[in-house]
Amino acid sequence: MSRRPGLYPNDRVTLREVGLRDGLQMVKSYPSTAEKQNWIAREYAAGVRHFEIGSFLPAARMPQFADIRDLIATVAGLEGAVSSALALNERGANDALETELDEIVCVVSATEEHSQANMRRSRDEAVKLVADIAGLAAHSSRKPFVNVGISMAFGCSLAGAVAHREVLQLVDACLDAGADIVGLADTVGFAGPKQVAELCTATARLCGDRPFIIHLHDTRGMGIANASAALDAGARVLDGSLGGLGGCPFAPGATGNVVFEDLVFLCESKGFATGIDLEALAKVRQIPEAAMPNERFHGALARAGPPPNLAWRAGA
Amino acid sequence: MSRRPGLYPNDRVTLREVGLRDGLQMVKSYPSTAEKQNWIAREYAAGVRHFEIGSFLPAARMPQFADIRDLIATVAGLEGAVSSALALNERGANDALETELDEIVCVVSATEEHSQANMRRSRDEAVKLVADIAGLAAHSSRKPFVNVGISMAFGCSLAGAVAHREVLQLVDACLDAGADIVGLADTVGFAGPKQVAELCTATARLCGDRPFIIHLHDTRGMGIANASAALDAGARVLDGSLGGLGGCPFAPGATGNVVFEDLVFLCESKGFATGIDLEALAKVRQIPEAAMPNERFHGALARAGPPPNLAWRAGA
Repeated sequence: MSRRPGLYPNDRVTLREVGLRDGLQMVKSYPSTAEKQNWIAREYAAGVRHFEIGSFLPAARMPQFADIRDLIATVAGLEGAVSSALALNERGANDALETELDEIVCVVSATEEHSQANMRRSRDEAVKLVADIAGLAAHSSRKPFVNVGISMAFGCSLAGAVAHREVLQLVDACLDAGADIVGLADTVGFAGPKQVAELCTATARLCGDRPFIIHLHDTRGMGIANASAALDAGARVLDGSLGGLGGCPFAPGATGNVVFEDLVFLCESKGFATGIDLEALAKVRQIPEAAMPNERFHGALARAGPPPNLAWRAGA
Repeated sequence: MSRRPGLYPNDRVTLREVGLRDGLQMVKSYPSTAEKQNWIAREYAAGVRHFEIGSFLPAARMPQFADIRDLIATVAGLEGAVSSALALNERGANDALETELDEIVCVVSATEEHSQANMRRSRDEAVKLVADIAGLAAHSSRKPFVNVGISMAFGCSLAGAVAHREVLQLVDACLDAGADIVGLADTVGFAGPKQVAELCTATARLCGDRPFIIHLHDTRGMGIANASAALDAGARVLDGSLGGLGGCPFAPGATGNVVFEDLVFLCESKGFATGIDLEALAKVRQIPEAAMPNERFHGALARAGPPPNLAWRAGA
């Protein structure tokens, strides 16, 4: 059982905005802290509650995440909002534990090749780090959630195909190590909906009554189809980024998380209420678009709007 | 039973390139006949066999389709290739019957409002026209296939929601009227995958061993997800257009057929062999892109390429 089941209820869909983290990982320029805070506030007003907002890394290495503490404070001031941030080592986790962060995100690569190239550690060492961070979190005063993302879970830019069995073993190992929730990431956008359905079905079986996260990239146009397949297979927590911003610095060719706005439309059209006002959400794009005029933003809903004369919302 | 079962085998997937018809319906400039012929030849070389290439309309009204007879001759010269063209009235059908056209496409609107606004006839009159054209085709020497597309089958820009029951009644009426194959068109991109799955399942049941067509627009980013749902529900013939070109002049906001290249990747990743060389297909985009520099082309596969180190093809 999760220590904080309320963070991710498993009886409805939760959408996580990862644009402020994954979306800013590769950009040349990035929004100011005030612009990010406005982005968060406007999305919160539209109904978004889960925000992955940065990474605990030396500011010299990733200056776009230097304001992580300010953003955690921003999210902490919004009732019911959840802040998440990456911690890639014990130092990052200790830094995180000094804040009001709600969720520490760890990353474990699905393949040994990517683990070594990306994190300079083996998968076993990465799982050991999860256990260490989960231990630190459990003994802290605020006891943040520990969320482990399995990157390259649907195929790896270095190692090629990834056996589902290996991913499931890692999911199991991470839960054993004390993860509260595990995510499957299609980091380089290799997956198709058949594969997503199969791996999500197996993961749902393994996780039992714990929810799991599905993190998709739209690199090959399959993002929404994969999200749809994941929902059908029992996934109830999905990552996305406003305007499909995002990529992975260690994954050549990986462009764009699945578009958050389009994900909202998909969920609602499938009967899953998201609590998000799609029209209000689409308008928030103005903030990152103005702050990053050189980035390419994606998404169909922001362009076309929802069907004007149709009851497309869940329960409508 | 279809009179020409070979045109659409129901034991595998057939992808129809409609870019030369639906893709050119709204464009300001369009490729020359030689450019279109090159487009067809290059796609044929990549493995495409079904080409919807225009409409039998007065050239003054739709100059982009004035070369329809030349293109029919081009397709007729390619072994195993199938040419389709719209005939919106009896005169168009008679003109078509004087050519080597393989398939006459008729359109019936799913809603009375759209039928009147678009075609200036009732749905009953449209079905009667199908019967007349099917009669002409049956008594002709070449006996072309009669394909009826039900437009606005998933929701209508004028009438809003469309009851599945009404669409199914129209499918049934068109088959009774002599249609060889019927298609469901999400003309304005209102559909989500749940709705597509439900209507395709019911249509598959109604059509029995006859295949049916699914024609999707990506207006709201659901194109590939809807195609995936349609395949799951038994659809085996799918329309798409290279680069997602296309729209509908009578459907405000309708932009882009589902992207043909991405559709190939989807099908292959789901285990449906398409017979199409995706890399070769993506290169054909150069032709319409050069001929129509002001049009916006879509699609992820052409940008990212298929996964470089993964066996993503059906049966691979």
